[in-house]
Amino acid sequence: MTNAVKNNALYAAIDLGSNSFHMLVVHEVAGASRTLAKIKRKVRLAAGLQEDGNLDDAAMQRGWDCLQLFAEQLQDIPANHIRIVGTATLRIARNINVFLEQAQVILGHPIRVISGEEEAALIYEGVAWTSSGTGRRLAIDIGGASTELVIGEATSALLLNSLDMGCVTWLRRYFADGLLSQSNFERAIAAARQVLTPVAGAYLKLGWQGCIGASGTIQAIQEIMISQGADERITLAKLQALKQDAIACQRLDTLNLPGLQADRVSVFPSGLAILIALFDMLAIDDMVLAGGALREGLMYGMLGQRQDCDARERSADSLISRYQLDRTQAERVRNTALNALSQLINQQKAVQKKAELRTVDQTLELELELDSAMLGWAALLYELGLCIEYKRAPEHAAYIISHIDLPGFTAAQKQLLAALLLNQRDDFQLAALELQSAIDTEQAILLARLLRISIILCLRRTRGTVPEFQISAQGSQLTLTLPANWSQTHHLRASELQQEAQRQTELGWPLVIEEMAKSEGAKLNLRD
Amino acid sequence: MTNAVKNNALYAAIDLGSNSFHMLVVHEVAGASRTLAKIKRKVRLAAGLQEDGNLDDAAMQRGWDCLQLFAEQLQDIPANHIRIVGTATLRIARNINVFLEQAQVILGHPIRVISGEEEAALIYEGVAWTSSGTGRRLAIDIGGASTELVIGEATSALLLNSLDMGCVTWLRRYFADGLLSQSNFERAIAAARQVLTPVAGAYLKLGWQGCIGASGTIQAIQEIMISQGADERITLAKLQALKQDAIACQRLDTLNLPGLQADRVSVFPSGLAILIALFDMLAIDDMVLAGGALREGLMYGMLGQRQDCDARERSADSLISRYQLDRTQAERVRNTALNALSQLINQQKAVQKKAELRTVDQTLELELELDSAMLGWAALLYELGLCIEYKRAPEHAAYIISHIDLPGFTAAQKQLLAALLLNQRDDFQLAALELQSAIDTEQAILLARLLRISIILCLRRTRGTVPEFQISAQGSQLTLTLPANWSQTHHLRASELQQEAQRQTELGWPLVIEEMAKSEGAKLNLRD
Repeated sequence: MTNAVKNNALYAAIDLGSNSFHMLVVHEVAGASRTLAKIKRKVRLAAGLQEDGNLDDAAMQRGWDCLQLFAEQLQDIPANHIRIVGTATLRIARNINVFLEQAQVILGHPIRVISGEEEAALIYEGVAWTSSGTGRRLAIDIGGASTELVIGEATSALLLNSLDMGCVTWLRRYFADGLLSQSNFERAIAAARQVLTPVAGAYLKLGWQGCIGASGTIQAIQEIMISQGADERITLAKLQALKQDAIACQRLDTLNLPGLQADRVSVFPSGLAILIALFDMLAIDDMVLAGGALREGLMYGMLGQRQDCDARERSADSLISRYQLDRTQAERVRNTALNALSQLINQQKAVQKKAELRTVDQTLELELELDSAMLGWAALLYELGLCIEYKRAPEHAAYIISHIDLPGFTAAQKQLLAALLLNQRDDFQLAALELQSAIDTEQAILLARLLRISIILCLRRTRGTVPEFQISAQGSQLTLTLPANWSQTHHLRASELQQEAQRQTELGWPLVIEEMAKSEGAKLNLRD
Repeated sequence: MTNAVKNNALYAAIDLGSNSFHMLVVHEVAGASRTLAKIKRKVRLAAGLQEDGNLDDAAMQRGWDCLQLFAEQLQDIPANHIRIVGTATLRIARNINVFLEQAQVILGHPIRVISGEEEAALIYEGVAWTSSGTGRRLAIDIGGASTELVIGEATSALLLNSLDMGCVTWLRRYFADGLLSQSNFERAIAAARQVLTPVAGAYLKLGWQGCIGASGTIQAIQEIMISQGADERITLAKLQALKQDAIACQRLDTLNLPGLQADRVSVFPSGLAILIALFDMLAIDDMVLAGGALREGLMYGMLGQRQDCDARERSADSLISRYQLDRTQAERVRNTALNALSQLINQQKAVQKKAELRTVDQTLELELELDSAMLGWAALLYELGLCIEYKRAPEHAAYIISHIDLPGFTAAQKQLLAALLLNQRDDFQLAALELQSAIDTEQAILLARLLRISIILCLRRTRGTVPEFQISAQGSQLTLTLPANWSQTHHLRASELQQEAQRQTELGWPLVIEEMAKSEGAKLNLRD
């Protein structure tokens, strides 16, 4: 066994949790990593913790049986490509050495039992690698027996704590009678506030720009919100409303909320109570869901991933090379689209200033930033569907974006990206633009219109062929101004722009294509 | 314009037909070619042919206008990456030089007016590149004004003719009154037989193993058949039934068959009549649809494609590299699956021989060959979906295969491949196996079962880890026999095989996992 050939492209991250053991196996090829297997067994180790703090024999045996499965796969993976950690229950069981000794024989690899702080740091790493955002971020992971709370910047944690409360322990303590009563919720929330009290001040003092949640509890809450038609941002008001919905169900065994999966039902109210306390005490405005946590933190640490850029940039870059997109063309379309959008934004700002709104307001600024970013990503990835086939390429691109792991993009942002890609040419598919919840429908339609125009302007795919242009908006009308006599020498694009103008105009969004008067022509030169 | 930078990755094939002008633009990157644009304009050049054989001014102008569009794109493409051909109408118009002179000025490139035989040869090339099959193939393309008939072997044409009949000319001559009468059909078929009479003998004498159709008429016929729930093979009996369906509609303007697209309605009966005459006089058993014809022949001639293998092999190879699949693992799974299938086939043949069917019959032999091929391709491509995401990877693989251009595979074979990929793990999705029409549902289920077992046996992805095994069938039961004590040392795969056995058994297809008795163990060794 020890002499077996290893497969150098394989990596494994194993996490021995209180409730389940997980193994994540990843294959790295041509700089891209692909998940090959996610093996999970409900070992329920914590259930074997006895009053004296020892783990009972049956629980240990369940753990060893599971590790024997993992061991078969581990044989083929180089030792430095494997990380195995144990968390809460392994930390606290008094006789843990009995378990570990046999476990390490089975696995043929060391198990690192990590402290709460190490766990928090790894979780932060997993969150940071799979989420976007700049500045300080607050990451929260509600586990079965502990809750990790970290403020970090880029990929390093600045302040971290592992708190002694979780959705399984809070279920046992505050919902043991199976009642979803107001008073049970109040007791659970109050207890969570008490756990938070000693640490909350430090977090509030350090501060953060964005809040990101990991773990099943937070994912379940987001799924319910989305299935209620709300957007993906979790807020205190929405959590309070969910609490009322749960109370209306009266009992745990009759709890039934649209979007809530059966295997999350039992730990849902307790997790919700903890999250409400966190939002309340830390004055969290809103939270989005992370794409990964502990196991991803373990894995990313091993893989040779770029650390020098934003997760979204890494994701887009990886897509461009994995799907062999024409990067030069993609950047040409992005530059054209962003040029168009910034012309419109500058006009809008000028109008606002004139109307004596001396400064452009903050929210608008943020919205515009998101618009630009999303239009830029959509333009960069617009040809994704060609890897499948030309005719329905926009649909294929939308399919890929909807389903692919795209670290750094939230679910709503992926939905918007997919809707823009779907609408890049041919007839408009309005439903997708209406359904996405990242930005206003009207704004999404504007981005789609700009993307389509940019793709046509760039269709020659050659340096120096994109014309200088001006674009302006009056209500829903866009006016695109091209160099003098441009259409006389650029028949294909002129014809395509005319078709496009007709399509947009028929839908009630007039698109007017004009050319500079001859005397103005000198101002405009071909550029790229 | 002449000094502009060219984009060396671009290729264009332009075909100036009697009815439409088409431009196909392809981008070659990392050895794979992608269609970037298909531009088509209904120029209706043939409608401008006057009685004196001259093309009128209006038709020429329509042609030139269209070429001005194409010209804008052509500027960016290197001259040796462009092929432009003219067919039927350009061949026969007496004043064609007037048209060509101006056309070549507009395009900046020469137009080659090709003979009927050259057209037939190019069509054969396009068919050969995009279809599978060994031995001699008969390729048939029914155009608007001509029908090309070619026998070829591999990529070279051996016998070719361009016949002076087509779905547009036959429409004018035999269905001018708009009636779908028995007598109109009979006259149209008889006339087609007459055109065929002088050449049919040579084709029958040379002979062929498979018949492949190209062109809109044949595609439309296949679409109708598929929407009627029939399989994709076109036979004379099915064509006769379609003729009766058409006659039942009485008039061209009330012709309405499920699956028939509006823009094909008018030329459908005339094309059908020609095809019936061809099937009848050449005694064609059945025909499948090609993935390409003239334009693809032009394009493939320019691209540096491998010529040394079957189209299916080229397609699979290209997918493996474009989607960066783990080729070693893919081949490991394929070898395992084909080993299992050949064990079952040998047992079946042995049983047949015993039952005094001294020779295994021919049809069965062909069916088995198709089964092996399809199982092999499915195994080779099983990880295709991982390029999108792990959790629903089987669905993604099926989506990609269903939509991708896959030269060499017929529509039904793609459907079967997609169904097998969808059923590679997790719960069975029987509907897909039932819906595919390439092979019997029962046989498709068997292939899926073998694929699943093979994937589990290969899950360690490492040399020397696939056990020697025996597999046998009794009715719907499969028995898999592994080396003695194998499960004692291979916990993960043993556990996965047990889960799989339970899944298959619950669906009424028992899967029994056994191990060799110890004494037999010596016979079996690890191998890969």
